[in-house]
Amino acid sequence: MKYDPQNPFARILRGELPSLRVYEDDVTVALMDIMPQADGHVLILTKEPVAEVFELSAGGAAACMRTVQKVARAVKAAFNPPGVMIAQLNGSAAGQTVPHVHFHVIPRHAGLELKLHAAQPADMAQLREFAERIKAAMPEDD
Amino acid sequence: MKYDPQNPFARILRGELPSLRVYEDDVTVALMDIMPQADGHVLILTKEPVAEVFELSAGGAAACMRTVQKVARAVKAAFNPPGVMIAQLNGSAAGQTVPHVHFHVIPRHAGLELKLHAAQPADMAQLREFAERIKAAMPEDD
Repeated sequence: MKYDPQNPFARILRGELPSLRVYEDDVTVALMDIMPQADGHVLILTKEPVAEVFELSAGGAAACMRTVQKVARAVKAAFNPPGVMIAQLNGSAAGQTVPHVHFHVIPRHAGLELKLHAAQPADMAQLREFAERIKAAMPEDD
Repeated sequence: MKYDPQNPFARILRGELPSLRVYEDDVTVALMDIMPQADGHVLILTKEPVAEVFELSAGGAAACMRTVQKVARAVKAAFNPPGVMIAQLNGSAAGQTVPHVHFHVIPRHAGLELKLHAAQPADMAQLREFAERIKAAMPEDD
Protein backbone atom coordinates (compact mmCIF):
# COMPACT_ATOMS: atom_id res chain seq x y z
CA MET A 1 0.00 0.00 0.00
CA LYS A 2 1.38 3.38 -1.04
CA TYR A 3 1.54 6.24 1.44
CA ASP A 4 -0.97 9.03 0.81
CA PRO A 5 -0.35 12.25 2.77
CA GLN A 6 -4.09 13.03 2.49
CA ASN A 7 -5.09 9.84 4.34
CA PRO A 8 -7.43 10.51 7.29
CA PHE A 9 -4.81 9.61 9.93
CA ALA A 10 -2.29 12.02 8.43
CA ARG A 11 -5.02 14.67 8.47
CA ILE A 12 -5.82 13.87 12.11
CA LEU A 13 -2.11 14.17 12.98
CA ARG A 14 -2.01 17.58 11.28
CA GLY A 15 -5.14 18.69 13.17
CA GLU A 16 -7.23 18.89 9.99
CA LEU A 17 -9.72 16.31 11.24
CA PRO A 18 -11.03 15.86 14.79
CA SER A 19 -10.19 12.84 16.95
CA LEU A 20 -10.75 11.53 20.45
CA ARG A 21 -7.21 11.10 21.72
CA VAL A 22 -6.45 9.03 24.79
CA TYR A 23 -2.64 9.37 24.69
CA GLU A 24 0.04 11.24 22.77
CA ASP A 25 3.82 11.47 22.84
CA ASP A 26 6.44 12.76 20.41
CA VAL A 27 6.13 9.84 18.00
CA THR A 28 2.74 8.19 18.58
CA VAL A 29 -0.93 9.07 19.12
CA ALA A 30 -3.69 6.83 20.52
CA LEU A 31 -7.30 7.62 19.66
CA MET A 32 -10.74 6.03 19.65
CA ASP A 33 -11.68 4.12 16.49
CA ILE A 34 -14.87 5.81 15.26
CA MET A 35 -15.98 2.56 13.55
CA PRO A 36 -15.26 0.32 16.53
CA GLN A 37 -15.38 -3.43 16.49
CA ALA A 38 -16.05 -3.40 20.25
CA ASP A 39 -16.43 -0.91 23.08
CA GLY A 40 -12.96 0.40 23.90
CA HIS A 41 -11.43 -0.18 20.44
CA VAL A 42 -8.38 2.12 20.27
CA LEU A 43 -6.00 2.88 17.38
CA ILE A 44 -2.34 3.68 17.91
CA LEU A 45 -0.78 5.73 15.09
CA THR A 46 2.86 6.33 14.35
CA LYS A 47 3.67 9.93 13.48
CA GLU A 48 6.00 8.69 10.73
CA PRO A 49 4.56 9.09 7.21
CA VAL A 50 4.69 5.39 6.28
CA ALA A 51 1.97 3.08 5.03
CA GLU A 52 3.19 -0.37 6.15
CA VAL A 53 5.19 -1.85 9.03
CA PHE A 54 8.06 -2.79 6.69
CA GLU A 55 8.89 0.90 6.19
CA LEU A 56 8.57 1.98 9.84
CA SER A 57 11.86 2.82 11.57
CA ALA A 58 12.99 0.38 14.28
CA GLY A 59 12.66 3.19 16.84
CA GLY A 60 9.20 4.03 15.56
CA ALA A 61 8.14 0.38 15.84
CA ALA A 62 9.40 0.18 19.43
CA ALA A 63 7.60 3.42 20.28
CA CYS A 64 4.34 2.10 18.80
CA MET A 65 4.65 -1.05 20.89
CA ARG A 66 5.29 1.01 24.01
CA THR A 67 2.07 2.96 23.41
CA VAL A 68 0.17 -0.19 22.40
CA GLN A 69 1.10 -1.83 25.69
CA LYS A 70 0.09 1.24 27.71
CA VAL A 71 -3.24 1.40 25.90
CA ALA A 72 -3.81 -2.35 26.29
CA ARG A 73 -3.28 -2.02 30.05
CA ALA A 74 -5.63 0.96 30.21
CA VAL A 75 -8.34 -0.75 28.15
CA LYS A 76 -8.04 -3.84 30.36
CA ALA A 77 -8.34 -1.68 33.48
CA ALA A 78 -11.19 0.45 32.13
CA PHE A 79 -13.38 -2.26 30.56
CA ASN A 80 -12.08 -5.52 32.01
CA PRO A 81 -12.85 -7.49 28.83
CA PRO A 82 -12.14 -11.24 28.94
CA GLY A 83 -9.82 -10.86 25.95
CA VAL A 84 -7.72 -8.15 24.30
CA MET A 85 -6.47 -8.43 20.73
CA ILE A 86 -3.62 -6.40 19.28
CA ALA A 87 -3.53 -6.27 15.48
CA GLN A 88 -1.53 -4.44 12.85
CA LEU A 89 -2.51 -4.88 9.20
CA ASN A 90 -0.46 -4.35 6.06
CA GLY A 91 -2.07 -4.35 2.63
CA SER A 92 -5.74 -4.44 1.70
CA ALA A 93 -5.50 -8.24 1.51
CA ALA A 94 -4.81 -8.13 5.26
CA GLY A 95 -7.70 -5.75 5.92
CA GLN A 96 -5.75 -2.48 5.99
CA THR A 97 -8.03 0.40 5.01
CA VAL A 98 -5.95 3.51 5.78
CA PRO A 99 -2.44 3.77 4.26
CA HIS A 100 -0.75 4.96 7.46
CA VAL A 101 0.79 2.51 9.97
CA HIS A 102 -1.55 1.90 12.91
CA PHE A 103 -2.16 -0.74 15.54
CA HIS A 104 -5.55 -1.87 16.84
CA VAL A 105 -6.21 -2.64 20.50
CA ILE A 106 -9.58 -4.42 20.57
CA PRO A 107 -11.46 -5.85 23.57
CA ARG A 108 -12.66 -9.33 22.69
CA HIS A 109 -15.60 -11.13 24.20
CA ALA A 110 -15.88 -14.47 22.45
CA GLY A 111 -14.83 -16.51 19.46
CA LEU A 112 -11.99 -16.22 17.01
CA GLU A 113 -13.59 -14.41 14.10
CA LEU A 114 -12.52 -10.86 13.61
CA LYS A 115 -14.11 -8.06 11.68
CA LEU A 116 -11.74 -5.18 12.12
CA HIS A 117 -14.27 -2.50 11.33
CA ALA A 118 -17.90 -2.47 12.27
CA ALA A 119 -20.47 -1.40 9.71
CA GLN A 120 -21.78 1.39 11.92
CA PRO A 121 -20.04 4.49 13.26
CA ALA A 122 -19.99 4.81 17.02
CA ASP A 123 -22.30 7.04 19.05
CA MET A 124 -20.02 10.01 19.63
CA ALA A 125 -21.24 10.83 23.14
CA GLN A 126 -20.58 7.25 24.20
CA LEU A 127 -17.21 7.29 22.45
CA ARG A 128 -16.23 10.43 24.40
CA GLU A 129 -17.18 8.68 27.63
CA PHE A 130 -15.09 5.63 26.68
CA ALA A 131 -12.13 7.90 25.86
CA GLU A 132 -12.36 9.49 29.31
CA ARG A 133 -12.43 6.07 30.99
CA ILE A 134 -9.33 4.96 29.08
CA LYS A 135 -7.45 8.20 29.72
CA ALA A 136 -8.19 7.86 33.43
CA ALA A 137 -6.79 4.32 33.36
CA MET A 138 -3.60 5.07 31.40
CA PRO A 139 -0.54 3.84 33.31
CA GLU A 140 2.05 6.36 34.49
CA ASP A 141 5.13 6.73 32.31
CA ASP A 142 7.89 4.32 33.33
CA MET B 1 -4.87 -16.37 31.40
CA LYS B 2 -2.54 -17.74 34.07
CA TYR B 3 1.07 -18.57 33.24
CA ASP B 4 1.84 -22.30 33.10
CA PRO B 5 5.56 -23.19 33.03
CA GLN B 6 4.65 -26.46 31.29
CA ASN B 7 3.06 -24.68 28.30
CA PRO B 8 4.46 -25.83 24.93
CA PHE B 9 6.28 -22.55 24.22
CA ALA B 10 8.05 -22.66 27.59
CA ARG B 11 9.03 -26.25 26.80
CA ILE B 12 10.31 -25.19 23.36
CA LEU B 13 12.35 -22.40 25.00
CA ARG B 14 13.87 -24.96 27.40
CA GLY B 15 14.67 -27.29 24.49
CA GLU B 16 12.22 -29.94 25.70
CA LEU B 17 10.20 -29.79 22.48
CA PRO B 18 11.51 -29.33 18.93
CA SER B 19 10.85 -26.22 16.85
CA LEU B 20 11.76 -24.71 13.51
CA ARG B 21 13.46 -21.47 14.52
CA VAL B 22 14.01 -18.69 12.02
CA TYR B 23 15.55 -16.17 14.45
CA GLU B 24 16.73 -15.97 18.04
CA ASP B 25 18.26 -13.33 20.29
CA ASP B 26 18.70 -12.97 24.05
CA VAL B 27 15.05 -12.19 24.74
CA THR B 28 12.99 -13.46 21.79
CA VAL B 29 12.65 -16.49 19.50
CA ALA B 30 10.86 -16.69 16.14
CA LEU B 31 9.67 -20.07 14.89
CA MET B 32 7.31 -21.61 12.38
CA ASP B 33 3.72 -22.14 13.57
CA ILE B 34 3.12 -25.88 13.16
CA MET B 35 -0.63 -25.25 12.75
CA PRO B 36 -0.28 -22.43 10.24
CA GLN B 37 -3.08 -20.24 8.99
CA ALA B 38 -1.08 -19.55 5.82
CA ASP B 39 2.27 -20.45 4.27
CA GLY B 40 4.92 -18.45 6.13
CA HIS B 41 2.99 -18.09 9.43
CA VAL B 42 5.64 -17.32 12.06
CA LEU B 43 5.35 -16.97 15.84
CA ILE B 44 7.51 -14.62 17.87
CA LEU B 45 7.90 -15.63 21.54
CA THR B 46 9.20 -13.57 24.42
CA LYS B 47 11.59 -15.45 26.68
CA GLU B 48 9.89 -13.87 29.71
CA PRO B 49 7.62 -16.28 31.60
CA VAL B 50 4.43 -14.23 31.20
CA ALA B 51 1.03 -15.19 29.80
CA GLU B 52 -0.38 -11.85 28.59
CA VAL B 53 0.94 -8.58 27.18
CA PHE B 54 -0.12 -6.67 30.29
CA GLU B 55 2.58 -8.46 32.32
CA LEU B 56 5.38 -8.21 29.76
CA SER B 57 8.18 -5.77 30.67
CA ALA B 58 8.40 -2.62 28.55
CA GLY B 59 11.82 -3.76 27.34
CA GLY B 60 10.45 -7.19 26.53
CA ALA B 61 7.60 -5.64 24.53
CA ALA B 62 10.01 -3.47 22.54
CA ALA B 63 12.23 -6.49 21.88
CA CYS B 64 9.26 -8.52 20.64
CA MET B 65 8.30 -5.71 18.28
CA ARG B 66 11.86 -5.52 16.99
CA THR B 67 11.79 -9.23 16.14
CA VAL B 68 8.24 -9.02 14.78
CA GLN B 69 9.29 -6.29 12.36
CA LYS B 70 12.37 -8.26 11.23
CA VAL B 71 10.24 -11.36 10.67
CA ALA B 72 7.54 -9.36 8.85
CA ARG B 73 10.18 -7.99 6.48
CA ALA B 74 11.62 -11.47 5.92
CA VAL B 75 8.21 -13.04 5.30
CA LYS B 76 7.36 -10.25 2.87
CA ALA B 77 10.67 -10.79 1.06
CA ALA B 78 10.41 -14.59 1.06
CA PHE B 79 6.75 -15.03 0.07
CA ASN B 80 5.69 -11.63 -1.27
CA PRO B 81 2.12 -12.03 0.03
CA PRO B 82 -0.29 -9.20 -0.83
CA GLY B 83 -0.98 -8.68 2.89
CA VAL B 84 0.76 -9.31 6.21
CA MET B 85 -1.09 -9.35 9.51
CA ILE B 86 0.54 -8.98 12.89
CA ALA B 87 -1.57 -10.18 15.84
CA GLN B 88 -1.07 -10.69 19.55
CA LEU B 89 -3.88 -12.28 21.55
CA ASN B 90 -4.62 -12.11 25.25
CA GLY B 91 -7.21 -14.38 26.86
CA SER B 92 -9.10 -17.29 25.36
CA ALA B 93 -11.91 -14.86 24.43
CA ALA B 94 -9.39 -13.24 22.08
CA GLY B 95 -8.30 -16.59 20.65
CA GLN B 96 -5.18 -17.14 22.78
CA THR B 97 -4.45 -20.86 23.08
CA VAL B 98 -1.01 -21.00 24.72
CA PRO B 99 -0.47 -19.08 27.99
CA HIS B 100 2.87 -17.55 26.98
CA VAL B 101 3.12 -14.14 25.25
CA HIS B 102 3.57 -14.55 21.50
CA PHE B 103 2.98 -12.55 18.34
CA HIS B 104 1.72 -13.92 15.01
CA VAL B 105 3.08 -12.78 11.65
CA ILE B 106 0.64 -14.11 9.07
CA PRO B 107 0.71 -13.68 5.28
CA ARG B 108 -2.77 -12.70 4.13
CA HIS B 109 -4.23 -13.28 0.71
CA ALA B 110 -7.78 -12.00 0.81
CA GLY B 111 -10.65 -10.94 3.02
CA LEU B 112 -10.89 -9.82 6.60
CA GLU B 113 -11.83 -13.02 8.37
CA LEU B 114 -9.17 -14.56 10.52
CA LYS B 115 -8.83 -18.03 11.89
CA LEU B 116 -5.65 -17.92 13.90
CA HIS B 117 -5.04 -21.63 13.87
CA ALA B 118 -5.75 -24.00 11.03
CA ALA B 119 -7.36 -27.34 11.75
CA GLN B 120 -4.50 -29.30 10.21
CA PRO B 121 -0.85 -29.48 11.19
CA ALA B 122 1.61 -28.45 8.50
CA ASP B 123 3.61 -30.83 6.36
CA MET B 124 6.94 -30.79 8.20
CA ALA B 125 9.17 -31.05 5.14
CA GLN B 126 7.40 -28.08 3.59
CA LEU B 127 7.60 -26.18 6.89
CA ARG B 128 11.36 -26.76 7.03
CA GLU B 129 11.67 -25.38 3.50
CA PHE B 130 9.62 -22.30 4.47
CA ALA B 131 11.83 -21.80 7.53
CA GLU B 132 14.94 -21.82 5.34
CA ARG B 133 13.41 -19.27 2.97
CA ILE B 134 12.57 -16.95 5.86
CA LYS B 135 15.97 -17.36 7.51
CA ALA B 136 17.66 -16.50 4.21
CA ALA B 137 15.51 -13.35 3.97
CA MET B 138 16.03 -12.12 7.55
CA PRO B 139 17.35 -8.54 7.52
CA GLU B 140 20.77 -7.83 8.99
CA ASP B 141 20.85 -6.48 12.53
CA ASP B 142 20.66 -2.69 12.61
